[in-house]
Amino acid sequence: MIETPYLLFLGDAPDMLAAKVAIGIRDWRPDHAVGQISLPGCGADLGLTEMSLAEGKAAGAKTLVIGVANRGGIISQAWKEVLIEALGMGYDLASGLHNLLRDEGDLVAASQVNGGTLHDVRVPNVDYPIANGKKRSGKRVLAVGTDCSVGKMYTAMALDDAMRAKGMNSTFRATGQTGILITGSGVPLDAVIADFMAGAVEYLTPDNEPDHWDIIEGQGSLFHVSYSGVTMALIHGGQPDALIICHEPTRTHMRGLPEYTPPSMEAVRDMALTLARVANPACEVVGISINTQHMSEDEAKAYLEKVEAQMGLPAVDPYRHGAERLADALAAL
Amino acid sequence: MIETPYLLFLGDAPDMLAAKVAIGIRDWRPDHAVGQISLPGCGADLGLTEMSLAEGKAAGAKTLVIGVANRGGIISQAWKEVLIEALGMGYDLASGLHNLLRDEGDLVAASQVNGGTLHDVRVPNVDYPIANGKKRSGKRVLAVGTDCSVGKMYTAMALDDAMRAKGMNSTFRATGQTGILITGSGVPLDAVIADFMAGAVEYLTPDNEPDHWDIIEGQGSLFHVSYSGVTMALIHGGQPDALIICHEPTRTHMRGLPEYTPPSMEAVRDMALTLARVANPACEVVGISINTQHMSEDEAKAYLEKVEAQMGLPAVDPYRHGAERLADALAAL
Repeated sequence: MIETPYLLFLGDAPDMLAAKVAIGIRDWRPDHAVGQISLPGCGADLGLTEMSLAEGKAAGAKTLVIGVANRGGIISQAWKEVLIEALGMGYDLASGLHNLLRDEGDLVAASQVNGGTLHDVRVPNVDYPIANGKKRSGKRVLAVGTDCSVGKMYTAMALDDAMRAKGMNSTFRATGQTGILITGSGVPLDAVIADFMAGAVEYLTPDNEPDHWDIIEGQGSLFHVSYSGVTMALIHGGQPDALIICHEPTRTHMRGLPEYTPPSMEAVRDMALTLARVANPACEVVGISINTQHMSEDEAKAYLEKVEAQMGLPAVDPYRHGAERLADALAAL
Repeated sequence: MIETPYLLFLGDAPDMLAAKVAIGIRDWRPDHAVGQISLPGCGADLGLTEMSLAEGKAAGAKTLVIGVANRGGIISQAWKEVLIEALGMGYDLASGLHNLLRDEGDLVAASQVNGGTLHDVRVPNVDYPIANGKKRSGKRVLAVGTDCSVGKMYTAMALDDAMRAKGMNSTFRATGQTGILITGSGVPLDAVIADFMAGAVEYLTPDNEPDHWDIIEGQGSLFHVSYSGVTMALIHGGQPDALIICHEPTRTHMRGLPEYTPPSMEAVRDMALTLARVANPACEVVGISINTQHMSEDEAKAYLEKVEAQMGLPAVDPYRHGAERLADALAAL
């Protein structure tokens, strides 16, 4: 667990796109962020209060989170000065960069002097078990995509919001670096050793109260040949009671694979459901989440109506219209 | 690549079961083994010439292979004396044990003094790429199982033998520790980081001559919830042209999962083929390999006939009757 609240480090982010992690924290866990801290030339602004390290500390911040990704994922010398000063003031550090905090001797030294913790969420810090497939108490919903990067994390976060708003008992379970930094815990599934992937998902979603829902962040796609094994481990380790199909309708090929056409929603539904029922025979597909960001409002509404008729399931864009209808579908299960 | 030929170290193996790796080398690559070396009390005997380290060296052995697995996979003090002496005589060492050679300071020191290489085949020694899904030249066949440990490696090895006997152009591609030690190279897929699994399989089975077949060793099962992600990466990274379904008909539950019933061969055929055609639309299921070790000869024959009629495909037990008919099916493709 990463200690909250955070001060969000934006560094010298060239633009808002580079600040994806910080934006996710601001949007989904606003209570986790006391403010932002930038370096000269920073092109990202979250609209939070700009603070010095001392002001962040005074506002109660426990952890300085690197909310920015730069090319190559490198920790630059310009960043180092702030990070070392933060450790000196009693902050912990948290990062999802490829360049691990723990591999930087000066950061390690400063953390040892001051007792601060270095959280590298890109790599596992737990010896996960091999999955045992035993039925667990409580309920689980998993977002599965026709492709990578179609909005699975966003869907899960929006669903968590909508379920809490309805008074349902739910927990978002992060399986990627961004989700872990946003919520403070989770499993970096793409960095887990093959034999332990499904076991890591079991570890992440343990026995719970009968009415509790784990909302499991999806990864990859069963139809994306680079990452399908990770998706498979989520389906079998997560033993979901419910699946939500996530789709981005304007995509012409699979992300990073120009020769591969995205599958139909029906193909994903049939494949994912058949596989999910190996681990949980009661599993159902309960809804469709469409990423309509490349459509006008009218186009989006027409498309959602068409998908709803075609699939016989609630179809929503949680970004435009919220995830209430998906939460309703889970409540009705 | 592990240098051949080998001297096979049986240590103090309590019985033949513990010498599975050495037996595999003797059976499938007899030219790789100049002899065996045992410690007092060893309960395994491969029927090879028992040799001292010096005799093995004189017979041309380049590598001392630990052909035995003991409880916990530990390198004992009794073994150490032989291993250090071997390094002193110029042997390389190769091991698939959990207890890595490279984690033993005295072995590392001895290897540095004498220039010998320590091969720990349980862990990858390559930074595998992320899979790109590009169509590769040459052909590939993959063994997929209804369960773990149903005879996939044996089937692939027997198929390699049968294809060579027919004059076909083929290479066995090991994906597990035993297969790697037998053939001297491969990818320890269960130890690869999740994001790189499919890329590791692409790396293992690169572009090749148009008539060349990679015979890819299968792992796990699409229906085994602990390891299905690894199987998925083999299907998508291997982009097989042909699948062989492997089955052990007397099993009452999935290996290690008492609550899980094995799937039908038809379910595995349909699921594996649908997934394989994502990466290679031309993929076909060409045959069935049945492990009849728990059946009499008459029972086995009757069962194979029944399966052949039921599935409409050649059904053989390669251990009892050879894999010629599977090789024929590939040649006819």
